[in-house]
Amino acid sequence: MMASERVLVTGGQGFIGAWVVKQLLDEGVHPIIFDLKENNGILEQVLQPQQMLKLERHYGDISDTEHVRSLVLECKPTAIIHLAGLQIPTCKVNPVLGAQVNVIGTLNVFEAAKALREVTGGKPPMIVYASSAAVLGPPSAYTETPVPDDYYHKPGTIYGVFKLCNEGCARLYWQDHQMPSVGLRPLTCFGVGREIGLTSAPTKAIKATVLGRKYTVTCSGTTGFSYVEDVARIFVGCMRASVEGAPAFNIRGVVDTSEHFVEILKQVLPEAGQLIDIKGPSIPIMADTDESALTALLKSVPAPHDLKEPFPLPLDECIRRTAEHFKRLADEGRLHSNDLPPLE
Amino acid sequence: MMASERVLVTGGQGFIGAWVVKQLLDEGVHPIIFDLKENNGILEQVLQPQQMLKLERHYGDISDTEHVRSLVLECKPTAIIHLAGLQIPTCKVNPVLGAQVNVIGTLNVFEAAKALREVTGGKPPMIVYASSAAVLGPPSAYTETPVPDDYYHKPGTIYGVFKLCNEGCARLYWQDHQMPSVGLRPLTCFGVGREIGLTSAPTKAIKATVLGRKYTVTCSGTTGFSYVEDVARIFVGCMRASVEGAPAFNIRGVVDTSEHFVEILKQVLPEAGQLIDIKGPSIPIMADTDESALTALLKSVPAPHDLKEPFPLPLDECIRRTAEHFKRLADEGRLHSNDLPPLE
Repeated sequence: MMASERVLVTGGQGFIGAWVVKQLLDEGVHPIIFDLKENNGILEQVLQPQQMLKLERHYGDISDTEHVRSLVLECKPTAIIHLAGLQIPTCKVNPVLGAQVNVIGTLNVFEAAKALREVTGGKPPMIVYASSAAVLGPPSAYTETPVPDDYYHKPGTIYGVFKLCNEGCARLYWQDHQMPSVGLRPLTCFGVGREIGLTSAPTKAIKATVLGRKYTVTCSGTTGFSYVEDVARIFVGCMRASVEGAPAFNIRGVVDTSEHFVEILKQVLPEAGQLIDIKGPSIPIMADTDESALTALLKSVPAPHDLKEPFPLPLDECIRRTAEHFKRLADEGRLHSNDLPPLE
Repeated sequence: MMASERVLVTGGQGFIGAWVVKQLLDEGVHPIIFDLKENNGILEQVLQPQQMLKLERHYGDISDTEHVRSLVLECKPTAIIHLAGLQIPTCKVNPVLGAQVNVIGTLNVFEAAKALREVTGGKPPMIVYASSAAVLGPPSAYTETPVPDDYYHKPGTIYGVFKLCNEGCARLYWQDHQMPSVGLRPLTCFGVGREIGLTSAPTKAIKATVLGRKYTVTCSGTTGFSYVEDVARIFVGCMRASVEGAPAFNIRGVVDTSEHFVEILKQVLPEAGQLIDIKGPSIPIMADTDESALTALLKSVPAPHDLKEPFPLPLDECIRRTAEHFKRLADEGRLHSNDLPPLE
């Protein structure tokens, strides 16, 4: 922890956002949350009640260029973790809104950081932004595995097209303006708070089990599972890395099948045996990626980001932690089921 | 020509737009121009005065989703040639505006075409849009030549990043909504009306010669020269092609050096010998591309797009036509020099 760190977390009320905020708070770093409007749903599931009191929060639309600029000039963050964005299904239904939030929103973050550098005359704030494994096309598009970070990409979703555009923009902000950044590409990210999106089914299976409800996992086949605590540590670690450029890194996580994930869930929580089944198409995103460059970068980051725990955490441990967290929330009467399908 | 053709040309007041409109009018097709606000500067240089009277024109912002939708639903075009966009320098200075016009604007065209299909129940209007050779990175990024249409692309400008995003979006509109389109990638497009942009120098050299003014061509090295009459024929031809998919095609044009272009200019117009020199960096866009897929598609298009002339036209012929056109305008007192550097 550096006492001088001030980290702006866009989309800080979202799933990865809440865990990044938790990671920062656990390290004693001051997080500044920016999100559309107050919504404590996920934050209250992820943070301790006393942590909720320590949050500096600002509201506005990430696609509003002037608002984002004013915010950054006012808050003067030393780093920006940019997570605000719309998910795959929303972008498919409304591509224009998707591009406003995911493409223009990301440009707004870079432009605001550039403006801050112009005002302060110092280094620009480091930007770590959520790209996505969705920049990768389906497995059939690839002949070389594991897929390196800079392989030819042909996304299978318009969301992935926007994320790839962000990576290109980031590269140009380095080339034209020497603004460093890191893009990160998680695939099936799971843990408490993962409530929406194409790859939210594994998390919902754990929640349904804790709630004693039947649930069908709606995706099958091989994917890259990334537990959200690992992902939050990666974002915070990259924020502190010394980067000359604008790399975008695969996050490989644990490459396994959704079927095996359900098997492990049933070993960790035997009650899942009667509750959870699996039926659905495979996730059309290549999972067999190379994350050696990311790992090397993270190893270069000085403490406290020394990854004392195994990295990535094994799936059974992640499922156990997620289930225990959900149980604790249930015991406190705070576990909701809004994200599960309605009871029949 | 099909009497039933109604072609919406976005950016129809621009350089390629004016020549596309001319091609359509020459074939007796009804063009509908959409542009930001009335500006006859380029159209009056390209079209005959009597052709100016036949134009249906609408004004508005291509980045205004609702406006574009209303226009398309009202005009019911059978095809859309989408050329509205900001150039490389503008996108570099204002990336947010660049993305609004070039990315959101293109999504607006696809969304409006989709809405029109929903209303009419028929086929969606065919969309032919300007991508750009700027989706290609610098020559050093490529090991395989000529570069095929779908090679790995790493644009060297944020303009190129936006154009590549457009190609990805087009691909998804085919995948998700079965809307066919063609993207076209000219590089150094030249001819009467080419007044702005990174690769406008060759045209300005011809104009300066006609005006008897000194001019320094500000780019050097190898590029792909495309004469605008060829490019207009390609856009109109692709509009009539039977396309199942959303291909983006290289336009190779005539691959040559800017130095040799100036040599040919001096052969065609000896007075250029005393007026034109060349000094500048090479254009950082790979020019050695493969256009065989585009050529095959154009050959499949029935008359009148039978390309009776050599294709592409040789550079000396293109320079001659451009110079004669500029001279005619000069004789009529209609040739401006607003796009040339100020006289010393």
